[in-house]
Amino acid sequence: MMLINEKPKTTKMRIIVDAMGGDNAPQMTVRGCMLAVEKYNLEITLVGNSEQIKQHLTNERNIKIVHSTQVVSYDDEPTKVMRTKPKSSMLVGLSMLAAGEGDAFVSAGNTGALVTGTTLIVKRIKGIRRIAIAPIIPVKGGAAILVDGGANVDCTAQMLCQFAMMGSIYAEAVLNVNNPTVGLLNNGTEAHKGNKAAVEAYEMLRELLPVNFMGNIEARDIFSGKANVLVADGFTGNILLKAIEGTALYFSKNLKDMLTKSFLTKISALILKNGISDFKKKFDYNEHGGAPLLGANGAVIKAHGSSGEVAFCNAIRQAKSFFETDAVNIITDAVNKEGDV
Amino acid sequence: MMLINEKPKTTKMRIIVDAMGGDNAPQMTVRGCMLAVEKYNLEITLVGNSEQIKQHLTNERNIKIVHSTQVVSYDDEPTKVMRTKPKSSMLVGLSMLAAGEGDAFVSAGNTGALVTGTTLIVKRIKGIRRIAIAPIIPVKGGAAILVDGGANVDCTAQMLCQFAMMGSIYAEAVLNVNNPTVGLLNNGTEAHKGNKAAVEAYEMLRELLPVNFMGNIEARDIFSGKANVLVADGFTGNILLKAIEGTALYFSKNLKDMLTKSFLTKISALILKNGISDFKKKFDYNEHGGAPLLGANGAVIKAHGSSGEVAFCNAIRQAKSFFETDAVNIITDAVNKEGDV
Repeated sequence: MMLINEKPKTTKMRIIVDAMGGDNAPQMTVRGCMLAVEKYNLEITLVGNSEQIKQHLTNERNIKIVHSTQVVSYDDEPTKVMRTKPKSSMLVGLSMLAAGEGDAFVSAGNTGALVTGTTLIVKRIKGIRRIAIAPIIPVKGGAAILVDGGANVDCTAQMLCQFAMMGSIYAEAVLNVNNPTVGLLNNGTEAHKGNKAAVEAYEMLRELLPVNFMGNIEARDIFSGKANVLVADGFTGNILLKAIEGTALYFSKNLKDMLTKSFLTKISALILKNGISDFKKKFDYNEHGGAPLLGANGAVIKAHGSSGEVAFCNAIRQAKSFFETDAVNIITDAVNKEGDV
Repeated sequence: MMLINEKPKTTKMRIIVDAMGGDNAPQMTVRGCMLAVEKYNLEITLVGNSEQIKQHLTNERNIKIVHSTQVVSYDDEPTKVMRTKPKSSMLVGLSMLAAGEGDAFVSAGNTGALVTGTTLIVKRIKGIRRIAIAPIIPVKGGAAILVDGGANVDCTAQMLCQFAMMGSIYAEAVLNVNNPTVGLLNNGTEAHKGNKAAVEAYEMLRELLPVNFMGNIEARDIFSGKANVLVADGFTGNILLKAIEGTALYFSKNLKDMLTKSFLTKISALILKNGISDFKKKFDYNEHGGAPLLGANGAVIKAHGSSGEVAFCNAIRQAKSFFETDAVNIITDAVNKEGDV
């Protein structure tokens, strides 16, 4: 009889959140957190200016605050932040993650600083050459994960191979893609195509992932959904990402102009309302939450800088999955097994 | 009285055309040529399989044919073409340009082979490190020229500076942009951003073009029209170009699905017909014709592989301007003046 009352406590996931990072912080980060504790079984620690946080925190259930005095801004040079902003919400949060005071960390702040901070505080998994950022791109039939989206501008072929491995693990564990295919972003599909690193990586990936490596993929084909994992150096990956973003925005702007031109076109816009809403959703990065930092000794998620509350809540959901699926340990095991590539 | 009859002959521009290059050759190339001689004051020499050409040539006015027996295909490796396809329409045409048998050359064929063939047959301008391909991207208020769009995958900072110089000259002379601004494609706007070549090029460009160099530009901002010349290594440039193309296509496909979903949405599509047509035009590369090869000792234009007759005619118009504006000589003078960067 006693046993009935002694059912094991379900331990809540503990998410640490940089309350001060992002264009709309702390308002949207705080709102996103309240939404997340409502939807998911978790506890959140908001790190940041406690006074400002409290202004937006209308429901404290499962949320606590850790006060910090500094804020990392977009203008801060990533390499200097460790010295100049040790008491920032971002670095304090990362230290808490490293100390085991939480299971995952989410920030919508300065990407470069987050990568540097994660590398120096949370540290890399042993054997991993560089931490990569892995944004998720909505494509036909789902999403593709891009590794690297901008953390490492100069990459060797070896680094590209680790990106492929980490991206595949994340896609399988967290994004539920069975047997993810890997494409190497290149300026042509033929084996000999690409810059020095890409040509070398092609050969190495063929050996490392004989089944799942589908070869080179051109930027115009990524929406086909043929590759679940897109591998690129961070310079090229970032150009790809922002080219997609820029084109989609330019397209949307022109579409809007077209639909608001006259009385009749406005009527059409009304008829098309639902379609346009689906259309927008399809191209909305916010639906996917954020980008994981892969290769770190902990689950760190970069939320989009312009995140609203729903986007930020989605980033928290992603941090939860990142931790729950044990992706960090799977990557650690894989790198131990593979040895140094 | 005699003098009246002896008015100076207006010399017609002589364009050499690779009749066999492109997805729809020779049908679309031949049709494009007939359209061009109708619209512009020029003579065209079509190089290719004379029998096939004649099937489509319904009006021979100002058009002659030079027979050639081989065709460069998309699968041909650029570096091998010189040995394996010396009698191809592409290489025969380039040799004619080099020999002065025409003023400009247009091909919609294998880009890599065209760059290699141009480098080896037409040759580089003395002092120019590499020939670059410079596609034109439709942006707000006009167009931006991208140098390099894919000819040189690994680039030094010096090469990037020459791309900036050549692109500026072409933009000013051929595209009629007054005082063109130059942006360095980068993963951030700050001076320290980018891979090794980009960081170095930033400093050099600031010295070379103190007024016109606007600094780094992110891929999402290119549609703003802030930069008339976009400088990138060919690997990154090609990813940019194809990312724009892929996103625009994906967007169009989704737009079409939305408009054809039901009876009511089809009615809306009818109302929006003109708007959609303008919209398409805005994103249509074909409107701009082709991409010049910059740095060669002659005017060579690469037409889009999928060119229809209008696109091909536009590419011929561009070849005409390329020659008429003397852009090749202006680049030659500039490189002599600047010395080696």
